[in-house]
Amino acid sequence: MITRLLTTGIIASSLLFGSAIADEGMWQPHQLAQIKYKLKAAGLKLDPEKMADLNQFPMNAIVSLGGCSASFLSEQGLVITNHHCAYGSIQHNSTEENNLLVNGFVAKTMEQEPQASPSARVYVTESLTDVTKDIKGSIPKGAQGVDYFNAIDKREKELVAECEASQDYRCNVYSFHGGAEYFLIKQLAIRDVRLVYAPPSNIGKFGGDTDNWMWPRHTGDWSFYRAYVNKDGQPADFSTDNVPFKPKAFLKVNANGVEKDDYVMVLGYPGRTNRYRTDVEVESTFTNVYPTSKRLREEFIDVIKANSEDGSEARIKYESTIAGLANYAKNYGSMIESFNKGDMLDRKKQLTADLTKWINSDKKRKAKYGNAIDNLAALIIESNKTQDGDIVMGYLTRSTMMRVAKGLYRLAHEKQKPNVERRQGFQERDMKRFGQYMAVVNKRFDETVEKALFMHFVKEYSQLPVDQRNATFDAFFNLQNGLDLDKVAAQIESMYANTELTNTDVRLAWMEKSVDEFKASNDPFIQYAVSQFDNDMIEEEKEKAIGGKLQQARPAYMEAMIAFKKSRNEAVYADANSSLRITYGNVKGYSPQDGITATPFTTLEGMLAKYVPGDDEFDLFDNIRTAIKEKKYGPYKKEALGSVPVNYLTTLDITGGNSGSATLNANGEFVGLIFDGVYESIIGDWDYDPTYNRSIHVSVPYMLWVMEYIDGANNIIDEMTIVK
Amino acid sequence: MITRLLTTGIIASSLLFGSAIADEGMWQPHQLAQIKYKLKAAGLKLDPEKMADLNQFPMNAIVSLGGCSASFLSEQGLVITNHHCAYGSIQHNSTEENNLLVNGFVAKTMEQEPQASPSARVYVTESLTDVTKDIKGSIPKGAQGVDYFNAIDKREKELVAECEASQDYRCNVYSFHGGAEYFLIKQLAIRDVRLVYAPPSNIGKFGGDTDNWMWPRHTGDWSFYRAYVNKDGQPADFSTDNVPFKPKAFLKVNANGVEKDDYVMVLGYPGRTNRYRTDVEVESTFTNVYPTSKRLREEFIDVIKANSEDGSEARIKYESTIAGLANYAKNYGSMIESFNKGDMLDRKKQLTADLTKWINSDKKRKAKYGNAIDNLAALIIESNKTQDGDIVMGYLTRSTMMRVAKGLYRLAHEKQKPNVERRQGFQERDMKRFGQYMAVVNKRFDETVEKALFMHFVKEYSQLPVDQRNATFDAFFNLQNGLDLDKVAAQIESMYANTELTNTDVRLAWMEKSVDEFKASNDPFIQYAVSQFDNDMIEEEKEKAIGGKLQQARPAYMEAMIAFKKSRNEAVYADANSSLRITYGNVKGYSPQDGITATPFTTLEGMLAKYVPGDDEFDLFDNIRTAIKEKKYGPYKKEALGSVPVNYLTTLDITGGNSGSATLNANGEFVGLIFDGVYESIIGDWDYDPTYNRSIHVSVPYMLWVMEYIDGANNIIDEMTIVK
Repeated sequence: MITRLLTTGIIASSLLFGSAIADEGMWQPHQLAQIKYKLKAAGLKLDPEKMADLNQFPMNAIVSLGGCSASFLSEQGLVITNHHCAYGSIQHNSTEENNLLVNGFVAKTMEQEPQASPSARVYVTESLTDVTKDIKGSIPKGAQGVDYFNAIDKREKELVAECEASQDYRCNVYSFHGGAEYFLIKQLAIRDVRLVYAPPSNIGKFGGDTDNWMWPRHTGDWSFYRAYVNKDGQPADFSTDNVPFKPKAFLKVNANGVEKDDYVMVLGYPGRTNRYRTDVEVESTFTNVYPTSKRLREEFIDVIKANSEDGSEARIKYESTIAGLANYAKNYGSMIESFNKGDMLDRKKQLTADLTKWINSDKKRKAKYGNAIDNLAALIIESNKTQDGDIVMGYLTRSTMMRVAKGLYRLAHEKQKPNVERRQGFQERDMKRFGQYMAVVNKRFDETVEKALFMHFVKEYSQLPVDQRNATFDAFFNLQNGLDLDKVAAQIESMYANTELTNTDVRLAWMEKSVDEFKASNDPFIQYAVSQFDNDMIEEEKEKAIGGKLQQARPAYMEAMIAFKKSRNEAVYADANSSLRITYGNVKGYSPQDGITATPFTTLEGMLAKYVPGDDEFDLFDNIRTAIKEKKYGPYKKEALGSVPVNYLTTLDITGGNSGSATLNANGEFVGLIFDGVYESIIGDWDYDPTYNRSIHVSVPYMLWVMEYIDGANNIIDEMTIVK
Repeated sequence: MITRLLTTGIIASSLLFGSAIADEGMWQPHQLAQIKYKLKAAGLKLDPEKMADLNQFPMNAIVSLGGCSASFLSEQGLVITNHHCAYGSIQHNSTEENNLLVNGFVAKTMEQEPQASPSARVYVTESLTDVTKDIKGSIPKGAQGVDYFNAIDKREKELVAECEASQDYRCNVYSFHGGAEYFLIKQLAIRDVRLVYAPPSNIGKFGGDTDNWMWPRHTGDWSFYRAYVNKDGQPADFSTDNVPFKPKAFLKVNANGVEKDDYVMVLGYPGRTNRYRTDVEVESTFTNVYPTSKRLREEFIDVIKANSEDGSEARIKYESTIAGLANYAKNYGSMIESFNKGDMLDRKKQLTADLTKWINSDKKRKAKYGNAIDNLAALIIESNKTQDGDIVMGYLTRSTMMRVAKGLYRLAHEKQKPNVERRQGFQERDMKRFGQYMAVVNKRFDETVEKALFMHFVKEYSQLPVDQRNATFDAFFNLQNGLDLDKVAAQIESMYANTELTNTDVRLAWMEKSVDEFKASNDPFIQYAVSQFDNDMIEEEKEKAIGGKLQQARPAYMEAMIAFKKSRNEAVYADANSSLRITYGNVKGYSPQDGITATPFTTLEGMLAKYVPGDDEFDLFDNIRTAIKEKKYGPYKKEALGSVPVNYLTTLDITGGNSGSATLNANGEFVGLIFDGVYESIIGDWDYDPTYNRSIHVSVPYMLWVMEYIDGANNIIDEMTIVK
């Protein structure tokens, strides 16, 4: 066991790179037919081709919550997802007297189910239509750059608008392989969503940020929603007249959960991966973007902490910002570690060399794909030219008031256009969320902190060479001849002293004003936004131009890559793009380090061993501790473990967006809920390594044990169909 | 596997507590007969009773270096021990041009073997004589307290002096079971010791302080000495005329090393354990002494760092102090963690209750042992009365100049007595080391740091209640009415400004001066020492009185304990006391945490994975990295691992002082070198837990691989007797 990690491990992954054997791959439903023999060989007992049907079991039981995945567990529209996916809804229903995050919540009857967060949705995918020809056909012949970009953008918006004729649907066009294929995805959007059951956070979030991405893990990361529709079965606003939605399919729950080596699969909505990025992109990301971003995020946290006392009102406003920054700093840290230890870049370079050789070894291929690699590489190098400046500018202009002012002024401009032509985020459909953002700005804003952040990052920015800087920005802050720290500080002081944008009503009022009114304003942040606008638009056009070029170059490259892989008899999956995917693999531990093995299951006793009384992350209520100490396992004990399994590891290929995805066994029965990956698999977004890639799931026996012995949620157990 | 850790683990250890089954126990040679059936059952193929003979194989191959253990590996006096045990000798032979710590060293012929550190010794135990009756017989009837203490002290010194008539021997009286038994141990003291072979530190100290007490581990912690004697075979000062010592026995080296579950045993000189401490002692140690000491050590480090810049001359002087403090802070931290997680105190209390019940259940027993428990407990409580003050005072008076002045003045007093009556450390035999210490003080002394340390701890000290303080000390620094920080600071400034003790020659000159000369001195630190002396002597007498009482009470308690354990058919081993012991067990991994298993072997690839170019702790020379990458394993590859095993885990019961001990297999062949325990076993000095207690060994295949493929030490391989 020990040596597989570092000896055969490296060889194996270099042989496997990019190919879709082992447990790598996020497959589109229509691809199941392509890999059906592999699925059967791996142990799947369902018919792979039938499984692809969106209107049948099990696919119809799988839903999206927008950002998270979920699934139906009863014919009464009962939905299970992660606790962290339902977090906003649990918070929304908390009061000073009864904090549901702390206490948990169980609706004993449907009448007791409160509305989830008003923005909560359950999306049931009804159709996936290949619109590649439609979209590509809409591009004028010979269009390049911005024109190419705009043509696609326009046609996408038209298709979405047409499909979203009824507010009961949400539609999106997803590009696959960087634009080689386009699919229009139509989802029934259920908007009356209610909270059914959430365990207390010391189960649902046990381990907190400390255990995030870590093994051993003991998190009970699940919650239940219910989808409601009107009496005609159609989506409707929240109403007590509504009735539970009846899904075409729901999953049976296998109370035994899984055993080591079992076949498992996950059906869900993975967000983004970068598996087909070129060596040029990998190199700049891992040697520049991630290390710099990690450092700047850590500096961002340091500045916030230095300018807001622990526990102060100011600090509280930034706690979630700090958590987010720290989370990504840790994430980048892991990826940099993995990158430095591994040989991804060498393998990427080898792949480029192999692909080049394959293309050049055949005249026809050379004619077809000859320039694909070089064109893409040249474009990437071009678009990376201002990378250093862009990174720093990104942190410098996270300044809340700058973002507010620029957003409002952009809105005034966009409103001059017909709705369909407006930029995403400024269309009519976006206005509610836009207003909500403007309303809550002050909750996450402290002037002292904002000033300090600006002053910190303006120093970093001013040290960049001129060609990495923004001349219009330099002009506004007089940075052309170097940084005069005192002057900039005085200017920033004066801007905050004289702005009215810190007032919520003022911000909301600006949502209605015209471009001319902005131009006439004396508000220093509005003036800042006006001063930057023209140049920003020029930059945006440049980006679109590069974007348009990439929309031509990347598909060309991917077509060559797909042809190359097909020549080697490899099925090719597309990078994750938030569309419905299937991934399959096994329950399996791993060796994170020579001399250490992660076993595939954790147990109740391990959770108890982590208990720290009164701790934010590791507290446990008396009832759970007593039940463990007294070994009240009931029927949920696994003999091989001598206890109830809490979390388990699998080889499944997942990423963010898969959160809340149902884990199914070979029969399509529900056997767990995915909620995380291990630290060593964070780099999986770029590079699946069968040695280290492990996903973390909540086990069904643990869920049922908590429901029965801790939370008294027997009504939920009764509603589900439990099999053994 | 997973659940054994936390479920049966706890039960098992409570059943086993204090008993000597499983792998617990550090056995005296004469006890091997008592446990011979257990040894045979465990797999030992040698005759346990013959093994006890100090003049035969294998016992005669085992030696002490004073603080470390070692063993003979050839008939030419070749000695193997840990790299960290030979560290001073490697350092001693380093020059600016050739730092042997960095480069390593191989003597290709005996002529190339330089003298080790002049203080290096090889001690061959020749006899162990039970002198209990002699010592106890020397105590005047009815002697108590100080008199009891002094009587034992006197007789011990007499026995040692008599035994050490020739300088070729070192003798010591060791007390067992707190004074229930005494043994006179006579060791041949070989004083011409030479350095033969040391791997470079990036093998011998690979992992440094970071990996200290940690698994997974990849440290090549071995070095070779050779013992030389004169032509008559007697110990002699270093001379080129000397010849290699011919031991009565040496160990054969098994090139295969060990396999999982193999029987192994360690013969060596473990330092100190506290396995029979009472519940009262355990409670005060783990809830007061260790937590406070950990905090004060961390503060000590902080003060040093705050008052000496990184890399400065001042900081360099304290680097080893910092490392030592940090090392123990980590050590205490682990023990506190283990204590808080476990139930040692409950088990100790239960044992006291069981013992009490057993004593009281029989009239004879009650008459014999009736007061043993209470007497000891009362004495411990009495001696702990000033514990809080003693702890803080210990850090406050680590002040170098205070220690120097007190040491010198004490010497003046002690020199007034006949040699044999002087306190240990002030006898003629100690004078060389005393002078050496006085000579090198300035190398580890910086005035700014010392002042800051004093000012920091005087604040802590002054907050103690009066009955925890030292009135004489308070008088010298005018602390009777509370701390006037400025005044004390001024006093300390003045003391350093006016002392001449910072001059090495002055210090050495004071070694020759009389008590009256001290009393007449104007040197402020000498005046300090003089002012404290009388009171210190009173305190010392009090300590001796308690010591004497403990020398009566503890054996009484231990006699009851031994009788109790014998009644339960348990063999009883004594706490470690630096005398020769045997411990046996198996090669075995463990589960440090639910969901994680430590496998029993690490490999070359794991070492390479830790490589950090240019790092103090994790650098590796090119030749070792190349050999690993190219998989040049030679005959040292283990098929099951697919590589060369570097370190391995066993259940052996060891402690400090065992460092360098030979690990033997069932046939008494050399199969490794012990050098550390895992983090979870640090508490093992108090409580052996079979679930967590694991020792770490260097594997023989790794040693041979380095010798053959990396360091070119083939002559050493040729000299040893290699078996397979």
